[in-house]
Amino acid sequence: MNIKTLAGQLGISVSTVSKALNDSHEISAETKRKVLDLAALLNYTPNAYAGSLRNKKSSNIAVVLPEVADSFFSQAINGIESVAQEKGYHVIVYLTHEKQHKEQSILNDFRSGRVDGVLMSLSCETTSNDHIFRLNDKKIPVVFFDRVPEGMTAAKIVTDDFESSCKATMQLIAKGCQRLAFLSLSDKLAIFNNRVEGFKKALHNSGLVFDESMLVTCSSDEQQAHHVLTNLLMRPDRPDGVVASTEKTATELYDVCNQLGLQIPADIKVIAFASLPIAALLHPPLATIVQPAFEMGKVAATLLFKALEKPHFNLAKEYVVVPSVFVERRSGGC
Amino acid sequence: MNIKTLAGQLGISVSTVSKALNDSHEISAETKRKVLDLAALLNYTPNAYAGSLRNKKSSNIAVVLPEVADSFFSQAINGIESVAQEKGYHVIVYLTHEKQHKEQSILNDFRSGRVDGVLMSLSCETTSNDHIFRLNDKKIPVVFFDRVPEGMTAAKIVTDDFESSCKATMQLIAKGCQRLAFLSLSDKLAIFNNRVEGFKKALHNSGLVFDESMLVTCSSDEQQAHHVLTNLLMRPDRPDGVVASTEKTATELYDVCNQLGLQIPADIKVIAFASLPIAALLHPPLATIVQPAFEMGKVAATLLFKALEKPHFNLAKEYVVVPSVFVERRSGGC
Repeated sequence: MNIKTLAGQLGISVSTVSKALNDSHEISAETKRKVLDLAALLNYTPNAYAGSLRNKKSSNIAVVLPEVADSFFSQAINGIESVAQEKGYHVIVYLTHEKQHKEQSILNDFRSGRVDGVLMSLSCETTSNDHIFRLNDKKIPVVFFDRVPEGMTAAKIVTDDFESSCKATMQLIAKGCQRLAFLSLSDKLAIFNNRVEGFKKALHNSGLVFDESMLVTCSSDEQQAHHVLTNLLMRPDRPDGVVASTEKTATELYDVCNQLGLQIPADIKVIAFASLPIAALLHPPLATIVQPAFEMGKVAATLLFKALEKPHFNLAKEYVVVPSVFVERRSGGC
Repeated sequence: MNIKTLAGQLGISVSTVSKALNDSHEISAETKRKVLDLAALLNYTPNAYAGSLRNKKSSNIAVVLPEVADSFFSQAINGIESVAQEKGYHVIVYLTHEKQHKEQSILNDFRSGRVDGVLMSLSCETTSNDHIFRLNDKKIPVVFFDRVPEGMTAAKIVTDDFESSCKATMQLIAKGCQRLAFLSLSDKLAIFNNRVEGFKKALHNSGLVFDESMLVTCSSDEQQAHHVLTNLLMRPDRPDGVVASTEKTATELYDVCNQLGLQIPADIKVIAFASLPIAALLHPPLATIVQPAFEMGKVAATLLFKALEKPHFNLAKEYVVVPSVFVERRSGGC
């Protein structure tokens, strides 16, 4: 069943059928109706790829994420879908699993027109922007959210990482912590570095000295993270307060504390960047800096569609900061 | 930059360049090398859609899921990717958000050739199989996992829902529970109905009477689920033991118990079907029936690729049961 069959049965040309299916102004309403009715009757679906060649439009947007087993990313997807659904677009999710080579391979694939636009959050390994520049070359609009690249002009949606990290650290100090550690996921990405700077600023404000060995980079690999955290907590000068930069790092810290018999918050106080809906159900309830995940996804998608609809919109100059909310709970010493 | 530019610069025909790019046996190794070298030099990417028309192959497989904010589904994706990566395929994730109309729209989109194969787990609303049959008409192979359809022959990967539900219920009875409730997510899907049957069987084995009002269907909508659970726990004859059929239902139950001042496990014991990695960190630690999520994803993807590689492989007759593991923890009365 193809377009020729339709044309043959209707006794009109292939070109007329094609134009009717594409809702061309050259074709009468009467003919369009006949073509569409027969197409429906014969269960004819235009080949998506052939259609895409004509329209240069796939009706797909891609969301490229490090992982989905994280509440921030799963809530951001919902924010993105809330916009895409209205526009009649499918959201398709690609996972890099925190690997730069996977991110590169996915972006290369996009260059050939599979998607009309891209929303992405970088892998914690990503050090080069070359694969992103190559996507720009192909005029595929990209909006970054949360984990955004440095050293390149691009649309970026972030939260107030510096300020909220500083505030969380001040809170731990106010609760009596003297030896503070920061758990990062990567020393390569701006997001984590901004949080580290906020942490340092709070120490400085409080007259505490920043100890480089208390800045710990946890791996995205569970076993390695477990090893690093165990080492940190077994030191004679182990921290009495910790700011964790992801929900996974925070729950891994809980695990290690349980194994070592350390009590949260008595022995060690914890505040985490986390959008975990069940933070309050943990033992003890986890104090969190809650990023506006849904909102960030929604803002990012709104900008992307603006770029898709208005070719002259200067997308790359967009920079939006959506503030996070600090939620006190028992792990932070409250 | 297109195939004509390449042909022009090399002084050969467009058809020769096209055949060389497609590694045709008609073209000499020498010519192929020249074409590929120039394509690399000029940064030429074949248009994916044009390529797909020739090869009838998108190199994408779709995973259609109710949601990703659930540990079972996020771990299953990892199992699927572990296979797809080896085969050089991209895994793209589509979310139905538990809506049948969204599932239908996504599957309709696939009929036009966007993906080579589909792995899916049904939305809790899905009552009709028509959209699945239409996919079969297009010869796009489909493997179902976890939430599989009834009343149609199809490749299905499931766990031992009946047996593990029966076992969990027996465990609660052994710990002294007399008034047991089952929290389902849908009365439309086989998976939940099998778990209900296992629950009933355990009651029957123990000489307890099944009370229809203790079979509660929680909505995927949080507020509605909260309302239903509050009603259940405020009844004068509230349950003293609960089997929850998803991790979300279990954590919502924890929430409602906290609000009503009910103690788990003293007032009410809880066992849940859940692959939540942090089940042990909850207060109290959650007893779980852990489905082999990664393994189920892996088995499903392996079968799908077998079908893609061997056109005469009878995919639809495949039926695999991967057993779940019961993990005792304090919420279950241990």
